[in-house]
Parts: sequence; structure tokens; C-alpha cells
Amino acid sequence: MNINGTPWRTIWLEADNRTVGIIDQTKLPHHFEIVRLVTADDAALAIRDMLVRGAPLIGAAAAWGVFLGLLADSSDAALEAVCAKLIQARPTAVNLRWAVERMKTVLAPLPSQERPDAARSEAAAICEEDVRVNEAIGEHGLRLIEEQYRQKGRPINVLTHCNAGWLATVDWGTALAPIFKAQQAGIPLHVWVDETRPRNQGAHLTAWELAAAGIDHHLIADNSGGHLMRQGQVDLCIVGTDRTTASGDVCNKIGTYLKALAAADNGVPFYVALPASTIDWTLDDGMAIPIEERAEEEVLFVAGLAEDGSVQRVRIAPEQTRAANPAFDVTPARLVTGLITECGICKASKKGLLGLFP
Amino acid sequence: MNINGTPWRTIWLEADNRTVGIIDQTKLPHHFEIVRLVTADDAALAIRDMLVRGAPLIGAAAAWGVFLGLLADSSDAALEAVCAKLIQARPTAVNLRWAVERMKTVLAPLPSQERPDAARSEAAAICEEDVRVNEAIGEHGLRLIEEQYRQKGRPINVLTHCNAGWLATVDWGTALAPIFKAQQAGIPLHVWVDETRPRNQGAHLTAWELAAAGIDHHLIADNSGGHLMRQGQVDLCIVGTDRTTASGDVCNKIGTYLKALAAADNGVPFYVALPASTIDWTLDDGMAIPIEERAEEEVLFVAGLAEDGSVQRVRIAPEQTRAANPAFDVTPARLVTGLITECGICKASKKGLLGLFP
Repeated sequence: MNINGTPWRTIWLEADNRTVGIIDQTKLPHHFEIVRLVTADDAALAIRDMLVRGAPLIGAAAAWGVFLGLLADSSDAALEAVCAKLIQARPTAVNLRWAVERMKTVLAPLPSQERPDAARSEAAAICEEDVRVNEAIGEHGLRLIEEQYRQKGRPINVLTHCNAGWLATVDWGTALAPIFKAQQAGIPLHVWVDETRPRNQGAHLTAWELAAAGIDHHLIADNSGGHLMRQGQVDLCIVGTDRTTASGDVCNKIGTYLKALAAADNGVPFYVALPASTIDWTLDDGMAIPIEERAEEEVLFVAGLAEDGSVQRVRIAPEQTRAANPAFDVTPARLVTGLITECGICKASKKGLLGLFP
Repeated sequence: MNINGTPWRTIWLEADNRTVGIIDQTKLPHHFEIVRLVTADDAALAIRDMLVRGAPLIGAAAAWGVFLGLLADSSDAALEAVCAKLIQARPTAVNLRWAVERMKTVLAPLPSQERPDAARSEAAAICEEDVRVNEAIGEHGLRLIEEQYRQKGRPINVLTHCNAGWLATVDWGTALAPIFKAQQAGIPLHVWVDETRPRNQGAHLTAWELAAAGIDHHLIADNSGGHLMRQGQVDLCIVGTDRTTASGDVCNKIGTYLKALAAADNGVPFYVALPASTIDWTLDDGMAIPIEERAEEEVLFVAGLAEDGSVQRVRIAPEQTRAANPAFDVTPARLVTGLITECGICKASKKGLLGLFP
């Protein structure tokens, strides 16, 4: 997507055909820095230390990591070793394992001297597929915004939670893809950006994406969305998801459920944008999804730009206070107006999903 | 209430009978500092700069400010001037005007030499009345916690939002009064403390009060409460209110409405604690209450303790991003299980309120 008029992706093969560029997302929104990955170790560290994050982007980075590893040594032993190392960079990320396994399946049968070129092609293919899927989500979601605009004839107010933008993918994003498409289609719109405590991905990443693209937006405390909906200042909610059950329950960043409740209470359409790869067909009941409990430091401290231009963290609570930090919640399908996928929009239900994915 | 075993109030007459002590709340939770008010100007500045905050405490501070002013000059002209100055310290605080008018009504008819002593008595009376009202709220609310404990026979989990603790009053607080009473009654309990973005009164003040009193608690992001309720980890919600309409709609700190929605969705009792003085008998519909829009800096910056021990503020959003900052929301009476007042507990309805306050 555009950063002040220039198109970027989150990851790319450099012109030398031997190194890979990424945006260091740990530095956003205060500093925009490019990092060049030269070895598989570089890729593994970039994943582990969250220079790249977001399931689709982690998968892409791992695929490029396999390529970088094979440039140095394309033997069977090296292929095994590099794949194992990358999978361990963040063991819980589903897309990471999927991307590495896909690379291995393609590369293992080949003679070792053919592997680097094949790895380059396959990693590039994984990226292109991700872009296509997200752009399709954007096209389908665009129709919802167009419809609102046709009805109301004024700028459309979209509320989003966390970051499901292009920074979480190779390009376009999921929840933000319809917003970028609407901008391109010339529909006037304004985005309410939940700051998304405790990690502030809304303030750090979504606000940055929208500012860089020149899309009108306001940052709000996570507490504000309900009030804005009661006041008629939200036309549409669009969020992403980490896992969607076969019956349409949506596991997403903590706080999503509260916004879905407010949307239902105020008749505001609440949509979830997702690539089909996040559907867990083995699970019906979202309450069965285990919820990650993260470090209390994420709640007790807040990082930001200090007056001297350095990034610092400050403690917001008394010394003796402990914190709890569940990272996700589950929004029941009954509160979800619809699911926006690369294959179209459907009801958040088993029947709806099976209609799109028979 | 107790700070590490020692009883304190938020404001008191010092032993010299001529100066007034307060806790500087702008320094909490990182530093505990006492400030001594010597003149009416000191009191006005303490109110204006929020060293004292919370409607009941502002009223008490203004009453003591009148006393301090009369110590220096108890003439008619001085009484007029000091009252006018104190009312202007925070012109929107209803209790401030009420307390100053009450002082003036008592003092104006007296000979000037009698005024200082009378002012001392009246300010002390205002404080004692506030303590009595809040303690009564605590006694009534205690019954709700006792009932939960009888049913469940395990520590009771209470969720609260913002700070309606003793720091907002002279003593006891409103929403926290039942919690302090439960602690004294030996009921095991645990409090979920919403951090309450953007001003973080939960993290700064409620967590500090509970830590100082030795009450088990966890700080949570405002996003977490819905998830905790779905998981059965909240037995009861108790919050305060800035204004309650005659029909039971509750205007309170932004985000209260989202918690009330989640409580209703999960069958968790949602109570609001309030002194009768916050009931606005002239208003039925909470949506008619004007909502204060505060400075965007409160959302864009977060203040806390830096590693060097100083209190700093850091910017969490990109430079170009603007913020919206509605400070309150309105929770409709249908989502409120009951109102805890100094006269007892009632339904959040006109009938319920008229039953207690005929």
C-alpha cells in the first residue's frame, strides 16, 4: 500500500535477488526503518523479535527465510535444519508452519543445485497468493461500504479494532483492505481507530497505515466505541480474526467482543474480514479455543515516544499491583453480521460458511 | 481508609487548627505526597490543578478554602471574594458550588469575628456528612457481596471501572465502599481493576487504593472485562456515576456502557453506587446529558514512571494522527441491575428511585 504516495509491501526480494527487505515494525509508528535479511538466521530473528508480525506476513517471511538458507547451503541436511529453525521462531503461528512445510514439500524432491531458484519462485508465489486473497477480501468488503455510501450520501464512519491492515500481511491487509479499496474508489470515509490496549496495535500500526495512506481517521480509547455507536457516529465495524470456527464464532484481539455487543445493541453492522485459511473447520464452539495469557508487563507498562525523541516505556500502575492479560476473546456468531472472505461475504454460521466453501 | 495499616482521609484540619492537609493526587500512584493548604488561594489552586478531584472531595476542599480565607479576613467583602474565587476553580463541578453556597448561607448572617470558628465547624460538618453517606453506601453494597459469598463460598470477584474510591470523596468512596466494608467483614474478595483509558484512573488511583488497603486485585486493560465475564470470572460489577437521571440512566466514565452490555449478556449483576446528590431529578433520558469532549492529548500521550524514577509522558500515536476523547458515556437503565444509595438499594427506574426518595 501507499506510504505518502509511494507503493510498498511489507516484504520483498531486493534487486540483488539474494537478500530480502522488510519494514521493522517494532519501530513503528515513530520511526520507519528498513531491515535487509541476508541469512535464514536473520529471517528467524525478525520473526521471533516481531520485526514482522501478523500470521500471513510471518508465513511469507519464513518462506523467504528458507530461500536465504538454501542460498548458503542447499543440501538435504541444510534444508531440514533451516526449516526446523524457522518453525521454532514462533512455534504457535499456524501460517509459519504451513509456509515452511509448503516450501519443504516443493524443494525436497529437487536436486540440491535447483533448490535456490525454486525456493525463490515458491516464496514469491506465497506472497503473490497472499496479496490476491487480501485484495479479493477488499473487493468484497468494498461493496458494504459502497452500499452505506449510497444510502447515506456522506462520509462513511468505519470502526476497527487492533491491526488487521497491510502490515499484518504482504499487502492490502484483511479488515483494512475494504477501506483502502473504498479510498481508491473515491468514497469519502473516516475511520475510528481503537487504540487496542494493552499492545496498542491500533495506535501504533493502524493509525500509521491510515496516516501514511492519507485516510481520515481518529484514534480513540477502546472505551469510546460504544458511546460513538449510541450517538450514530459509526456506520460499520470491520475487524480481523485469528481463528474462526466452523459455526462462525470469531476469536480476535481482546476487546472485539465488547464492540460486537455495542454494535448489536445499536443496530450497527459488525463484519469480520478473514482469509479462508483462518477458518478452523475442526471446531464449532469458539469457547473451546484456548486463550493466550500474555505477560503482565504489557498492561503495567506503556511504550511511546519521549520528549527527547527516544522510545521509552513508562509504568502506569503502582509497584505492588499485578495485572492479568488475556490476549484474545471470542465473539459469538450471533453478534457477527457477516464474514468477508476472499470468496465473498456470508453469514457467520455453518450454513453460511459451507455456502462459500462447500 | 487504610494506607498500609494507617487510617487516612483525603482532607483534614491539621493539629494547628489553621491549616488543611491533603494528599496530592496528581503524584499518585508513583509518589505519596502531602500538601498543606494555608490560604484560600492554595485551596483554589489545589482544586484547579486537580491535586484533589472527585465531586465530593472538591466540595469539601472548597468548604475548607472558605475557612482558610476567613482566617485572614472575615469581612463581608472578603467572604464574597473568597467564595467567588473558589467557585471559579472548576466551574463545572456541581458539588463545588453547592459546598460554597452552603458555607456562605451559614456564615453571611454572622458577625465577622464569629465567622472563622463557624466556618471551621461547617467545613468539618460537610466532611462528616460525606463520610456518613459513603459509609452507608458501603453498608448497603456489602449485602450484595455477602449474598454472593453465601451462594458461592469462594472469593468473590468484583469488576470496577474508573475510580469511585475514597480518593474521590472524603473517605470510603462510592463504588469501592462496599469492597472496603467486605474486607472489614472478612469476606475474601478479588477486584478486577479496569485501567480506564485515557486518563488511567483505574491504574493510577483504584489500584493504588486497593494495594494500600491490602485488597487482592489485578489491573486489566479495559478490553478484558467482557472476556472475563464470559469465562465466569466476574461475580459482580460495581461502578460509580457522575449523574443519574430520574429514570435510572447512568452517566459515568467512558467505557461503563460496554461493561454493562457484557454484564447483561452474561447474567452478571451490574450495580451503580451513588450518593443521592448525583441524582438529576430534572432529567429522564440519559441521552440528553451533554458529554464533555476532552483534549486529544489525553489519548495521544500516556504518563507513567520512567526508568529513572521521574514521571514522564510518551506519545503512543503517529505525529499526524488526531484523537477523539469523549469523557463519559450513558448506560441505559435497562442494563443496570440496581442503584446502591445511602438510603438503600433500588431498581434503576423512576419507581425504584421514588421508593427510596419519595
